[in-house]
Amino acid sequence: MVHPHRYFDANPIRRDIAIALYEKVAHLPLVCPHGHVDPRLLAGNDRFPNPAALIVVPDHYIFRMLYSQGVQLEELGIPRQDGGPVEADPRKIWQRFADHFHLFRGTPTGCWLKHEFADVFGIDETLTSANAMAIYDRIEDCLARPEFLPRALFDRFRIEVLCTTDAATDSLEYHQQIRDSAWPGLVLPTFRPDACINLMAPGWKAEIARLGELTGSDIGSYRAFIQALEARRVFFRQMGARATDHAALSMFTGELSDTEAEAIFTRALAGNATEGDLHLFTGHMFMELARMSVDDGMVMQVHPGSFRNHNQEIFQRFGADKGCDIPVGTEYTRNLRPLLNKFGNHPAFRMVVFTLDETTYSRELAPLAGHYPALRLGPAWWFFDSIEGMTRYRYATTETAGIYNTAGFNDDTRAFPSIPARHDLSRRVDANFLADLVARHIVDHAEAEEMIVDLAYNLVKQTYRMEDIRLPEPVAG
Amino acid sequence: MVHPHRYFDANPIRRDIAIALYEKVAHLPLVCPHGHVDPRLLAGNDRFPNPAALIVVPDHYIFRMLYSQGVQLEELGIPRQDGGPVEADPRKIWQRFADHFHLFRGTPTGCWLKHEFADVFGIDETLTSANAMAIYDRIEDCLARPEFLPRALFDRFRIEVLCTTDAATDSLEYHQQIRDSAWPGLVLPTFRPDACINLMAPGWKAEIARLGELTGSDIGSYRAFIQALEARRVFFRQMGARATDHAALSMFTGELSDTEAEAIFTRALAGNATEGDLHLFTGHMFMELARMSVDDGMVMQVHPGSFRNHNQEIFQRFGADKGCDIPVGTEYTRNLRPLLNKFGNHPAFRMVVFTLDETTYSRELAPLAGHYPALRLGPAWWFFDSIEGMTRYRYATTETAGIYNTAGFNDDTRAFPSIPARHDLSRRVDANFLADLVARHIVDHAEAEEMIVDLAYNLVKQTYRMEDIRLPEPVAG
Amino acid sequence: MVHPHRYFDANPIRRDIAIALYEKVAHLPLVCPHGHVDPRLLAGNDRFPNPAALIVVPDHYIFRMLYSQGVQLEELGIPRQDGGPVEADPRKIWQRFADHFHLFRGTPTGCWLKHEFADVFGIDETLTSANAMAIYDRIEDCLARPEFLPRALFDRFRIEVLCTTDAATDSLEYHQQIRDSAWPGLVLPTFRPDACINLMAPGWKAEIARLGELTGSDIGSYRAFIQALEARRVFFRQMGARATDHAALSMFTGELSDTEAEAIFTRALAGNATEGDLHLFTGHMFMELARMSVDDGMVMQVHPGSFRNHNQEIFQRFGADKGCDIPVGTEYTRNLRPLLNKFGNHPAFRMVVFTLDETTYSRELAPLAGHYPALRLGPAWWFFDSIEGMTRYRYATTETAGIYNTAGFNDDTRAFPSIPARHDLSRRVDANFLADLVARHIVDHAEAEEMIVDLAYNLVKQTYRMEDIRLPEPVAG
Repeated sequence: MVHPHRYFDANPIRRDIAIALYEKVAHLPLVCPHGHVDPRLLAGNDRFPNPAALIVVPDHYIFRMLYSQGVQLEELGIPRQDGGPVEADPRKIWQRFADHFHLFRGTPTGCWLKHEFADVFGIDETLTSANAMAIYDRIEDCLARPEFLPRALFDRFRIEVLCTTDAATDSLEYHQQIRDSAWPGLVLPTFRPDACINLMAPGWKAEIARLGELTGSDIGSYRAFIQALEARRVFFRQMGARATDHAALSMFTGELSDTEAEAIFTRALAGNATEGDLHLFTGHMFMELARMSVDDGMVMQVHPGSFRNHNQEIFQRFGADKGCDIPVGTEYTRNLRPLLNKFGNHPAFRMVVFTLDETTYSRELAPLAGHYPALRLGPAWWFFDSIEGMTRYRYATTETAGIYNTAGFNDDTRAFPSIPARHDLSRRVDANFLADLVARHIVDHAEAEEMIVDLAYNLVKQTYRMEDIRLPEPVAG
Repeated sequence: MVHPHRYFDANPIRRDIAIALYEKVAHLPLVCPHGHVDPRLLAGNDRFPNPAALIVVPDHYIFRMLYSQGVQLEELGIPRQDGGPVEADPRKIWQRFADHFHLFRGTPTGCWLKHEFADVFGIDETLTSANAMAIYDRIEDCLARPEFLPRALFDRFRIEVLCTTDAATDSLEYHQQIRDSAWPGLVLPTFRPDACINLMAPGWKAEIARLGELTGSDIGSYRAFIQALEARRVFFRQMGARATDHAALSMFTGELSDTEAEAIFTRALAGNATEGDLHLFTGHMFMELARMSVDDGMVMQVHPGSFRNHNQEIFQRFGADKGCDIPVGTEYTRNLRPLLNKFGNHPAFRMVVFTLDETTYSRELAPLAGHYPALRLGPAWWFFDSIEGMTRYRYATTETAGIYNTAGFNDDTRAFPSIPARHDLSRRVDANFLADLVARHIVDHAEAEEMIVDLAYNLVKQTYRMEDIRLPEPVAG
Repeated sequence: MVHPHRYFDANPIRRDIAIALYEKVAHLPLVCPHGHVDPRLLAGNDRFPNPAALIVVPDHYIFRMLYSQGVQLEELGIPRQDGGPVEADPRKIWQRFADHFHLFRGTPTGCWLKHEFADVFGIDETLTSANAMAIYDRIEDCLARPEFLPRALFDRFRIEVLCTTDAATDSLEYHQQIRDSAWPGLVLPTFRPDACINLMAPGWKAEIARLGELTGSDIGSYRAFIQALEARRVFFRQMGARATDHAALSMFTGELSDTEAEAIFTRALAGNATEGDLHLFTGHMFMELARMSVDDGMVMQVHPGSFRNHNQEIFQRFGADKGCDIPVGTEYTRNLRPLLNKFGNHPAFRMVVFTLDETTYSRELAPLAGHYPALRLGPAWWFFDSIEGMTRYRYATTETAGIYNTAGFNDDTRAFPSIPARHDLSRRVDANFLADLVARHIVDHAEAEEMIVDLAYNLVKQTYRMEDIRLPEPVAG
């Protein structure tokens, strides 16, 4: 089912090199600098409810594919915004999932699930309509056992550090609970202020009010807003944050004068901001956030180019993150220039840029990262955290930027039990890429042996300034 | 000459898997849901005139390449718009073609021609200056024999259904002739109303007048226009049409109010429409055509992004379709949103989108098709119906949309004798793609065996709602 | 270190074909129609100063990569615009280079350097911190010997012709010195009038003044400007130029009326030109330059899409060409239409277009080159003159344009000793590409044997109209 040499090229010469390289990193700890696991999971350490709630309901990779083939989201138990009825029987959800499992052939979701079934739950068969209930029962059996509690899995997965993604207004109470517990697992927050910046979003004013409460200030001005964000960054740093995270439709950056920023902010507070205001303000805030990163050393992650909630009907009925975020073309050379001209040469600044527009890798991003000291390329992301996506990323970027201007791997997932599968797939893809370079005598074996460790482990730690972190030694049994 | 294992990867492990997969579909009937064969060919069933008229003169893939290297179109017998003299000797045309046959090395035209020469005409040599006349004579000998009449070839090619492309104002008289004949071959029309919609085209008013005649209405208003189109769709459905077909420069969609649509239509009738009107009207008509497809169940095919008649001098001297249609960049995420938001969740709607801009596959089209139930990705098309083009298409789309949101294969050709070569090439490419997945243990053999049949046969029939069609059993000899 | 079968696919079937094809062209002379070697080098024939000055300081491929990882340009001896102090010790520069040599793993610079070290200097080890000084000494020893003088290397490299790139206002005195010498090496100028056309550049008026001096005219009008350019072209032709060379941010072309052109030119002379003027004027000058090429037969090379001097701080401190030129997206279908419609069908016109935007190869450039007789695709360029870049170029263009609408290879380098490495890499990549076509039975061995010679030698000579040039027979020793 999951072949030990999966994802490697079929050519024996290359495959054998890939196997040897992979084996050097297969068992290295997992460094997870960017992801969406809910910290409550590890704070509470409660058992996972059932296979459908664990695997199907939270994973929009899975249910969007079934939806694309005519399965209604209600039939998969996706909660409705209006609280209306949806499928409540996890077995029925699981059966529908199994009935459509063939849709995932050739997809990363298919790869991760096969790995997860096999390595986490010991299930070696492919899920089918026929074996759906038997497999459900076997996973259910696992979930009832203490070694399948979240913290036990965290330890078993050898996670060295797991970074979550948290609103600027998050109390980080679950992170505090984890710190207060005896459990040594390292779970760090990431500062994501998008909801404070997106001044056209319906919830923006509430978010600003909450920001004011948390910082004990009345955010009646742009200046107060900036001070509040800075205060929250201090708090996040105290709680261990190493990075910030920012989404945007475009990568536009550009500084406003204080007067202009203040005017937009005031309009927004009065409910009169425009789309043009949002565009300018977002571009300006990227400049401000870069300045703050220079000051406090947090790594600034940016991932533009996703048109959120493209399907209005699904958004209205089920809310955000339902598989309807669709990429748009993005531009970096002109858009990043103001930011990189101001901060890109600064040794204290570190920026990681992700893209959903593959065409920008060789044309814009690799040339930029191959020049500006502050810039690192984030790994192939979202629709591209896949065998072919990652492979194209390496071939598109390495010749211009080298591997040393890339940021290692991010699993970027909320699907906690899929984390080992994702890292493993990435390590295999990188090993296979390097094996191609070795087989064609572009790099030699000794170089590749260093490079695979860099790609699987060192680069992510350097990029996110986590060299100080080490996996605790296992307690001798 | 045509190697039995052509187009498969040279790695024996992968190649052997590819051969096994290909053999499962090599002899399946051909389903041709989209193409440009002239129905007169099969209505009249007359012999093909001569090798040059069969192969060179109608194929702009061929003569554009010779033109790019300095051969004048007159020398190849391409008719002039002004009726002026062009080469009339088919042997001289054929000799020029042969003299430049090396230009097609590494091109799909080269691949198809080699296959066509070998499999249709039994010619195993590569065409050269030296053997040009000998090969001409051998093809000429074939064409004189009854088994090379169009219907005989249709049967020999095992074409299950052949869809033509027909103006909304076409009488479909040749389709009627075929239906009236004893011959059981299934030839179906496709509804293409472009000439009625392109209100800036010189012939638009004549087309509208013809539309009025055919529907017995005076098309003096937008409302009458819509009713006439609907009437023609009813007729096309009665004649067996399963699909509609639409070209556009951009994929812009957006609904106008009745008043706005009426105003533009009135301006156009008065000869006062603008490019802006055309843009808005085309975008609006996409909405209308989608609505009609929901109503009558015809599959809506759209292929944007071709800048037609780029070379003004060639267009003036020789007319349209002379190899001067050049792609432009296209955008789908924003442009398709109005249409997909209105109809994309509707179970009765089926839309097949083609692209000439490969960058949109992974960035926009696969994410859209991997979410919206109504959307299927058309196959790699035009400049991309080639070994590498199709291969890149599969690698770019499968991980995000799976194979089950793709539409199988279209040959899209007017070159009737090349149809088997085109399907065969596509089947080989898909087999080779799947063999790569099997060899890397991404899917297993059993999965791939289902997938290759899906790609070669099932998906096209499902997509075009042709499950009811089956090849007639051959009459026992 | 440099493996004899490097860069070929690891699959033995394909590799063996690639080796056989490569061997047919490995020793063919080098035709260099486009590059940036300083003609002074070959006029003076002085010894190269030292390894750092030869390899590190002039090569922005090298120092931009070190800069991206935090090495300051001052530390690498890059001269400052203000004449301020930079590292003057070539050994320290070399040591820093060696300390960071791992950054070039998997990059073309890494490949070229390994080849150059081995084949030019006989050094088979990989450069490391430890062996840096030993390797420095060995290169230094070489440079002191007469067989490492520029002309000796030129002859040893078997360069049939080397074209330089020269401002329209260059006196070509070094070219004259070479012609006046007894040495038979063929070094030809290329006409590059960019500095005369870019009317927003600070030095533009000085350049126009110099143009006036050289042509004995007072350039007070657009008409005089055009006449002066024409006069310079006559001079360049007399000095052996075969081609012109033009950069631009966009590929926009479009004719202005004489009045409009005159008005812009007058504004520019008065220091009042705008960015809009520059855009229109550049587009107009492309039309004019094409007209001149029709008249005098010089091949017109255009390479749009580089945003020059992106990093303002580096530009101010170190000047242009410091690794801060970053590509932007480009458009050809609409932009080239005016030019191609006017001149693209003309048999006397030959245009070579380069791109830094890979997405345009399959979408726009290959379709255009596969139709217009005047157009040839320049080779994969700059960030793409690399194993993967060239490979993707062939796969993206061949199916649509064939190989016969491509322009062979350009080394495009100022790094003289890297020339053989660059041609060798290109020949290997093409051999490996063709081997794939042979192994998959797309072309046969005999075809591939012709094609590899065309790609390595014939096409560049045809494209640049150099069929009359032949390498002088070596003098019998």
